[in-house]
Amino acid sequence: MVSSEDPSSTSGPGAPRRHPRIPPVNVHDGAFDPAREHTVIFQPSGRRGTIPEGATLLEAARRLGVGIESICGGRQTCSKCYVRIEAGSFGRYGIESTEAHLTPIGERELYYREKRGLPEGIRYSCDACVLGDVLVTVPEESQAHKQIIRKSATERAIEINPGVRKYYVEIPEPHLGQSSADADSVMAELAARFPELHDLTFDYPALRDLQFALRAGNWGITVSVWNEREIVRVEPGYREVAVGLAVDIGTTSVAAYLCDLRTGRVLATEAMMNPQVSYGDDIMSRISYTMEEDGGLDRLHTVIIAGLNDLAARAAARAGIEASEIIDAVFVGNSTMHHILLGFHPRYLGLAPFVPAVFSPVDFRARDLGLHALNPGAWVHVLPLEAGFVGADNMGVVLAEEPHEQDEIVLIIDVGTNGEILLGNRERLLCASSPTGPALEGAQILFGMRAAPGAIERVRVDPATLEARFKVIGEDRWSDELPPEQLGARGICGSGIIEAIAELWKAGIVDDSGRWTSSLVHPRLIEHDGLPAYVLAWPGQTALGDAILVSIADVRAIQLAKAALYTGVRILMGYRGVAAVGRIILAGAFGSYIDPERAMTIGLIPDCDLGQVYAVGNAAGDGARIALLNKARRVEAARVARWVEHITMPLEGDFQEIFMNALAFPNAADPFPHLEPILAEAARRRSTRERSAVTA
Amino acid sequence: MVSSEDPSSTSGPGAPRRHPRIPPVNVHDGAFDPAREHTVIFQPSGRRGTIPEGATLLEAARRLGVGIESICGGRQTCSKCYVRIEAGSFGRYGIESTEAHLTPIGERELYYREKRGLPEGIRYSCDACVLGDVLVTVPEESQAHKQIIRKSATERAIEINPGVRKYYVEIPEPHLGQSSADADSVMAELAARFPELHDLTFDYPALRDLQFALRAGNWGITVSVWNEREIVRVEPGYREVAVGLAVDIGTTSVAAYLCDLRTGRVLATEAMMNPQVSYGDDIMSRISYTMEEDGGLDRLHTVIIAGLNDLAARAAARAGIEASEIIDAVFVGNSTMHHILLGFHPRYLGLAPFVPAVFSPVDFRARDLGLHALNPGAWVHVLPLEAGFVGADNMGVVLAEEPHEQDEIVLIIDVGTNGEILLGNRERLLCASSPTGPALEGAQILFGMRAAPGAIERVRVDPATLEARFKVIGEDRWSDELPPEQLGARGICGSGIIEAIAELWKAGIVDDSGRWTSSLVHPRLIEHDGLPAYVLAWPGQTALGDAILVSIADVRAIQLAKAALYTGVRILMGYRGVAAVGRIILAGAFGSYIDPERAMTIGLIPDCDLGQVYAVGNAAGDGARIALLNKARRVEAARVARWVEHITMPLEGDFQEIFMNALAFPNAADPFPHLEPILAEAARRRSTRERSAVTA
Repeated sequence: MVSSEDPSSTSGPGAPRRHPRIPPVNVHDGAFDPAREHTVIFQPSGRRGTIPEGATLLEAARRLGVGIESICGGRQTCSKCYVRIEAGSFGRYGIESTEAHLTPIGERELYYREKRGLPEGIRYSCDACVLGDVLVTVPEESQAHKQIIRKSATERAIEINPGVRKYYVEIPEPHLGQSSADADSVMAELAARFPELHDLTFDYPALRDLQFALRAGNWGITVSVWNEREIVRVEPGYREVAVGLAVDIGTTSVAAYLCDLRTGRVLATEAMMNPQVSYGDDIMSRISYTMEEDGGLDRLHTVIIAGLNDLAARAAARAGIEASEIIDAVFVGNSTMHHILLGFHPRYLGLAPFVPAVFSPVDFRARDLGLHALNPGAWVHVLPLEAGFVGADNMGVVLAEEPHEQDEIVLIIDVGTNGEILLGNRERLLCASSPTGPALEGAQILFGMRAAPGAIERVRVDPATLEARFKVIGEDRWSDELPPEQLGARGICGSGIIEAIAELWKAGIVDDSGRWTSSLVHPRLIEHDGLPAYVLAWPGQTALGDAILVSIADVRAIQLAKAALYTGVRILMGYRGVAAVGRIILAGAFGSYIDPERAMTIGLIPDCDLGQVYAVGNAAGDGARIALLNKARRVEAARVARWVEHITMPLEGDFQEIFMNALAFPNAADPFPHLEPILAEAARRRSTRERSAVTA
Repeated sequence: MVSSEDPSSTSGPGAPRRHPRIPPVNVHDGAFDPAREHTVIFQPSGRRGTIPEGATLLEAARRLGVGIESICGGRQTCSKCYVRIEAGSFGRYGIESTEAHLTPIGERELYYREKRGLPEGIRYSCDACVLGDVLVTVPEESQAHKQIIRKSATERAIEINPGVRKYYVEIPEPHLGQSSADADSVMAELAARFPELHDLTFDYPALRDLQFALRAGNWGITVSVWNEREIVRVEPGYREVAVGLAVDIGTTSVAAYLCDLRTGRVLATEAMMNPQVSYGDDIMSRISYTMEEDGGLDRLHTVIIAGLNDLAARAAARAGIEASEIIDAVFVGNSTMHHILLGFHPRYLGLAPFVPAVFSPVDFRARDLGLHALNPGAWVHVLPLEAGFVGADNMGVVLAEEPHEQDEIVLIIDVGTNGEILLGNRERLLCASSPTGPALEGAQILFGMRAAPGAIERVRVDPATLEARFKVIGEDRWSDELPPEQLGARGICGSGIIEAIAELWKAGIVDDSGRWTSSLVHPRLIEHDGLPAYVLAWPGQTALGDAILVSIADVRAIQLAKAALYTGVRILMGYRGVAAVGRIILAGAFGSYIDPERAMTIGLIPDCDLGQVYAVGNAAGDGARIALLNKARRVEAARVARWVEHITMPLEGDFQEIFMNALAFPNAADPFPHLEPILAEAARRRSTRERSAVTA
């Protein structure tokens, strides 16, 4: 449950209750001699300097370049700027520090520290004025520019610097004979208290709310400022809750992260099936729908917008807030999802010369897009595209994984219908898309299915007995640890088919070129529709009433897909002039489930230290979250997106040769030194089998 | 009828017809020696300089600071930049000029000059490259920063510098292997061709139209750019029509001016009754309505928005265009109309301490205000308020009359329910509002009515016979030039009642203090409801079947109103330290009908040379039009609005004394030297009459 920490605040323009009058701001005047100066030292930074008598500790911190959090700009209200006063003699600094070296706690500080239950020994740095030398510790929670840690391939800190910030201001109650207007007074007060807030404009709905908010808030309001440029919301009284939404719009599923914009905390995660799925399973079928159906684009656009409104409402409900609290949003998605979201026609993405409507990031008002569940003042930032088919989701991965900040050569693969590949480091980063087709997602596979409950996702084939065991999604135990009737397997998902083929090859059932080893005789080796197949699950282990098979056609499909992806990778390596990569990052929901060793075994990914192959889950969504929490990262994304070089796959010459070699397991041309023990074992197994076949 | 001058242009995104391919831009290369320089002289400015060989005349003009119009930025398309080449030997300049000193006419110039029927002897300055010395005349129509002349108290030039400008751009048709996106290519081309267009953003609906427009326009589009900041519209091909709407929202009537943003020409003028009239006649009753009726503000807001949509559509229809061509708008109105238009509550305007929601000018999107008749990309600029009751309409008057640019002391009076007064010059300008009440608009007058057909607007009373003649609105002849049954008088409007009372006083029927001269006996002098009255129109002259009277109660009402206004003026003169004014400007529709001599005779306005009293009609509307046509004047209005000093009328001391004296005709304390002959004649008449009364 997120709520204002100030119980006196009203809940919005709907609530006409007035705020109680709070004690006035403590103004210390008269008694100071500004000619006198005192030493002030801030810990943990150790910054020190002499400060004229009468300055507040907050002013002292600003002068000495110490960042202290403040929402109210020194109005003794927000309680964010508190510091601890160290008492004692600090010989090493040559000072004696004591609370008596500061002006006493004012009425207003007293009011709010009681309200918020703050302990002894701390002071509001905006109330306490310097009367003598002091040693001050700024606790972590009062430090400006907080960071949160994101777990990833490597742990990384996200600095909190959101696109929308709240500021509390009070203006004097107007009186006769004074020439003032609500908006102009608020602007003047904001500019005076917060140097970054000049030349602001008011968004229309915010200005329309202002009269009410000022009076309901007893002339104290909280304004939400977008990009230090525009006031997008006003609320009566002091309100510190600021919430944003990061969304990764995938072709199949949409994942939303509701985040606290002050702390970076994820308040709720919510996912849904992309409602466009009923108009086409994959990107190409969606594009076709917009081209062939009258009003098709509008329909796809409308259903995703409605879906996002619903998703936002569900995420908000889960966090115990109203969706109208969402005041900023960042969206990512592949190029097609990006286009349909924004109402751009994806036909030109799908036809040569593959021209997107826009590469650059865009900022649009949520209400202009029809996202009416969000606050009327909310903006939506959509990350840039890199190239026709290297989308904003890939930019999200870049923001999350920062290949452009690395020394080592990083390979990022986002496997989907279209394989998106990034390769390089801080010196040069290349991207490409490779038409892998849908096989790696389980489509065009005899028993292929989505990664959903009942899908076989893990496969082991015993090389000696040729028996199989497997795991289905939704069940932690292997098939041989459960009674068959509890397995209920329904098909094979993308990671399952990769494992199955790697295991069939390791067991010598399939040879290097993908041919069936015809000499083997085994109950699991059968014929299906005239083609050899392997029984992965017996009828009793499935929910189908029939066996689940891996056929030689499946092997072909995976060979073609993995060869296409691998060829893209090799071509980028060629352009980049590197013979090996230092790290492989498998992005996307699918990437999380791929077993790195088996993916390398079939030659889906190039050779690399297996300890340096990471699945990073929904890195695109993480990137959206990073951009939501830090507006500087949006600027960075725009810069990197233009800097990344997009390589168009050549369709002749090198490509053909690399592709032909890549059809083999793991590869007919490239060595895989990091797989050496596995390859040796498989080779030994196969030659034994060949010998026994000869013997038989 | 306004239409694109390019008949090949389509009419918008609804029309999928492709543009015909036009000849390519003439690129002159190779043959030039840029080390050679030639003299180029531009008339009429006389600017001259040496220009490297091969530069276009347009480039030469830019280098020499000569402003030449161009919409297409040198794409040899818009035909705005043509110049005349003077042929011959110009000894005084030491040059020989000939068409041969320029590259010949290219195919594209040829194509467009034929299409547009341009004569011999002129050249597109963007096609003609310098090969030798030339003397060039820039005709007035090709000069940038055109001006239009506005007739006013003094004629003034309005420089054309609109908030929205159109630019034509062409991008190369995308081809495989090139990394481009529609929007990014357009942005890059705009920035390259028009130095003022960098860091542009796209408004959402414009970006949504871009894909279609580029393809329908064969990769040539016209973009409308707002404030050199945002692309608000895209259209296929070359389109130069740009239309804006200036509106003065009065309490009673709303006047709209549809203007060509390139030429400043008024394409249509359209007016309507303010639909809020059915919720209250005057400002105070509208404010009461919003305070007393549930949803009252929303209702008033909704009806004015609906009315404005309708008005825009009607103005557009009159000009033969679609209202969706309207791409910019400027609105003015008094503070209450301003607030209701924007959905701000006017209650705080009507209650002490009279605090508006905002003083500053505001820019909102028409669509956010619900003005859906306009183009989706249109912005609305609303001029600033000066003070609680000195509104944006008054700022319009200031823009039109420029008192802040004058040496002499100017008095501007905008008479309405609230008299708005401006006094001063370039050194110091004061403003005030004076609660004149509605009498001067014909309300609270026995036979008072609006200035509508049938209203008596002119009155003459023969001092000798005490007989009256009059004119009604809609009829040019006086009542004694027509048969009575054709007069159809229905009542007396504001200007009529002022004239009637001035004439009654001059004829000695009413004395200096407003009392009836009881000694007079005349068929027109009757009693009505126990009070003396004068028969202005006999029953046979009216459409009422009854006489139209001026009663002593009407005299009282006008005395109170004119005294309030005059007192406001005298108090401002006192603050400003001036004893007389150099010019009086009567603004507002009402002001146009007031007879300056009679207004001065009753002491509505202070003494002034009658030749320096001007009625300027709807100056507020003119100001809106000026702000529409010149965005720099919007900035100026914002500056002046904050610089003007608002004087709150004191309610005691001086005020009471000035007010008491101002009740008399023309005034009990102030001399009116410029009315001397009239005053002398009236005095003579009255003394004669008094003598004859004594004699009788």
